[in-house]
Amino acid sequence: MANEWASFGTDLHLELRGPRLRAGLMDALREAVRSGRLEAGTRLPSSRSLAADLGMARNTVADAYAELVAEGWLTARQGSGTRVARRAAEPRTATRPPRSPAPVLSLPRPSAPVHDLKAGTPDLASFPRAEWLRAYRRALTAAPNEAFGYGDPRGRIELRTVLAEYLARARGVHARPERIVVCAGFMHGLMLIGQVLRSRGVRDVAVESYGLGLHTGLLAGAGLGTPALPFDERGTRVEELAGQGGSVGAVLMTAAHQFPLGGALPPDRRAAVVDWARASGGLVLEDDYDGEFRYDRQPVGALQGLDPERVVYLGTASKSLAPGLRLAWMVLPERLAGEVAAAKGAVDWSSSAPDQLAFAEFLGSGAYDRHVRAMRLRYRRRRDQLVAAVAAHSPETRVSGIAAGLHAVLTLPPGTEQAVLRSAAWHGLAVQGVNQFRRPTVPATLDGLVVGYATPPDSAWQSALQTLCRVLP
Amino acid sequence: MANEWASFGTDLHLELRGPRLRAGLMDALREAVRSGRLEAGTRLPSSRSLAADLGMARNTVADAYAELVAEGWLTARQGSGTRVARRAAEPRTATRPPRSPAPVLSLPRPSAPVHDLKAGTPDLASFPRAEWLRAYRRALTAAPNEAFGYGDPRGRIELRTVLAEYLARARGVHARPERIVVCAGFMHGLMLIGQVLRSRGVRDVAVESYGLGLHTGLLAGAGLGTPALPFDERGTRVEELAGQGGSVGAVLMTAAHQFPLGGALPPDRRAAVVDWARASGGLVLEDDYDGEFRYDRQPVGALQGLDPERVVYLGTASKSLAPGLRLAWMVLPERLAGEVAAAKGAVDWSSSAPDQLAFAEFLGSGAYDRHVRAMRLRYRRRRDQLVAAVAAHSPETRVSGIAAGLHAVLTLPPGTEQAVLRSAAWHGLAVQGVNQFRRPTVPATLDGLVVGYATPPDSAWQSALQTLCRVLP
Repeated sequence: MANEWASFGTDLHLELRGPRLRAGLMDALREAVRSGRLEAGTRLPSSRSLAADLGMARNTVADAYAELVAEGWLTARQGSGTRVARRAAEPRTATRPPRSPAPVLSLPRPSAPVHDLKAGTPDLASFPRAEWLRAYRRALTAAPNEAFGYGDPRGRIELRTVLAEYLARARGVHARPERIVVCAGFMHGLMLIGQVLRSRGVRDVAVESYGLGLHTGLLAGAGLGTPALPFDERGTRVEELAGQGGSVGAVLMTAAHQFPLGGALPPDRRAAVVDWARASGGLVLEDDYDGEFRYDRQPVGALQGLDPERVVYLGTASKSLAPGLRLAWMVLPERLAGEVAAAKGAVDWSSSAPDQLAFAEFLGSGAYDRHVRAMRLRYRRRRDQLVAAVAAHSPETRVSGIAAGLHAVLTLPPGTEQAVLRSAAWHGLAVQGVNQFRRPTVPATLDGLVVGYATPPDSAWQSALQTLCRVLP
Repeated sequence: MANEWASFGTDLHLELRGPRLRAGLMDALREAVRSGRLEAGTRLPSSRSLAADLGMARNTVADAYAELVAEGWLTARQGSGTRVARRAAEPRTATRPPRSPAPVLSLPRPSAPVHDLKAGTPDLASFPRAEWLRAYRRALTAAPNEAFGYGDPRGRIELRTVLAEYLARARGVHARPERIVVCAGFMHGLMLIGQVLRSRGVRDVAVESYGLGLHTGLLAGAGLGTPALPFDERGTRVEELAGQGGSVGAVLMTAAHQFPLGGALPPDRRAAVVDWARASGGLVLEDDYDGEFRYDRQPVGALQGLDPERVVYLGTASKSLAPGLRLAWMVLPERLAGEVAAAKGAVDWSSSAPDQLAFAEFLGSGAYDRHVRAMRLRYRRRRDQLVAAVAAHSPETRVSGIAAGLHAVLTLPPGTEQAVLRSAAWHGLAVQGVNQFRRPTVPATLDGLVVGYATPPDSAWQSALQTLCRVLP
């Protein structure tokens, strides 16, 4: 029971306010009891565990629990932990009409999922607050005054200089500071490139068979078509680009770690997609969203290294550090760098200069490498636990795409994905099926779950994994 | 001579890198000598003064000077200060072909302006680093883990809550947190609103006769026409909106302090523009870029207070704090808030969550009020010095628009603006004429300079002011 609420904070804290954390937590708990989402008798997570999930001081949670015990909402008994009171008072709703009694057969499910294995977010509890703060302090202290003014739309030179060095070393990217444009996330970068491509007369950007609908939606919003390339067991059939006709001016690829299926594009196809770009005058947009996380061997280098004039490299701190920082970067061919910077500058967007300087300091001091290394170990351990648990509970389920990244694909028997997803929802497990990432024109041939094993905080991981195993066939 | 270089740092430091400030400064100085921009014999600003302008430690500058003296680029003599050496060595360019000698009659002008009185930027040297850092540290320490994830496109609830309270108190804005959308600058907000208006079928957004071309350019990029309203000595003739026909769906106004002419829209016209919006179903976009800085009396309250369902309020930290933070906000009518947030969320833009939390802490703790109060005193003093200096040197020149803000307009005799601007450029003074802000369809009837008196750091202000007086008729 306690396990089921271990990631309860994920729902609760959306309404919490920094300076009034305790009051906000108390309100959220009262509301959960009042609405029936927290049933009478339910055991709450320990204050230590909830505090860790919420990133609060333990005392804040313990104080909130104590006050709610005093108010009659909760009970606390030695050895039995903190539970929702059997007859929780409803002092604030006394004047409301009484709720109709729940039907006898109603299933006591929480209204929001309690386990989160959706892909796309790193473990937010591991954000290196102290190291980031140190870098921010150093950067803010050393910043020249002009850093607080309207900046270069490409981003701070300090950051672009350190990024060029880092990307060359870690990802094999041919980068020069003047070719780098800092942006506020991958989507921001994709939008800028989409605008420039459209203004150059490009009509279509080819995409992989499976991917994020947000990306195709964004490109469509820029007036671009998004034909999907076919795929086979070796990945995206980039050979088909030649048959797409002249309207395809670019192709969006997750070459190092296909999202969500998880494979790396094999070497002959890496060469083929660059050859296509050279022959057709097209462009490869390389979405290197989790390139730092490779477990089996050295990272697969960026495609961009093959031809920096034909590949746009897009990287981000959203998986390696935190999406909340809104820091990402593009490395552009020479002929595009000016246009993309101009598109950005036309609306005067840049990430906050102190943040950019802090990230430059964080990268330059080695703190970023240390953080990535630590997270790689942690995620690898989770991946191993996922593989072992699935093998034990559901030997028929194949786990693939595990050589890299923050997610894996669990292949399901044909036709069972929907049923498994329904069961997951019933068990309070948020997880997605591969078909939620299938482009509309691509025939359904796979059934599977996309499991983001980086998402839950440590305290919630084991219970999420157990719940996942329970819903597997 | 020393005075002329007092704001030299503004050009130099563009290439400086945080962790290598001294080396960067040395490179920049070597390059300035090598290129001839710093002529032999030129006296450099004192290390104290240059350090203050660049926001560096004085020792960093003194060390750089000492090393360059040792390298033979500079000379230092007691009582004569630091100067460019008469025969500065060019060790790195020894293999380059010798430069052709300068023509005998060449005017020894610096290639970039040395005095900056362009409007639009606050005094960046006054950014409250220590207080901001304190707020950032507190905010980062107290932030819940989810703050590091993908956020609400409207912005952090903590910031929107504090902003609602502040805007009501300081600007008379009717704000509720759910109607506020945080954005990365005024231009970002205007672009989002422009997109929503266009998708609702609006064809034109009326603008004032004088304003920033960046704004009309942005609206044009969103597919909107930007007809200019006429003006008279009382300001924008908003009565003419009724005659513009049904295609005008919104009007962009700087009602509290017209940019750049400097007047406040009189009460009857404030009422008239809101009446127009009510009668026509239109919208007023209120650009309150410097509303905190009013010197003669209590701030002119926001137009938005007259009708929160008909006025979009746009505010920013770019003038009150620093543009480099990329923090701005919109307060939207209920019927638009969801659409604007959706337009923002579709590309997943938000300002960095730690920055938003830091700003919430900065506002909530009173540090923002203290900073604005201190800057108001400082800018008011500069404004008084400007008025006094102009009265002494050029009694015919009228100074207007001085009741508020960070800039003033110096009215020039008809037909002289271009000549004065040429003279300013010759004297190394960057300043703009009112006609650079005139919309293309508006007839030229005014001659004047737009003087941004907040822009230079303290150490450069007096010399900029003297230079300005020298170029006035």
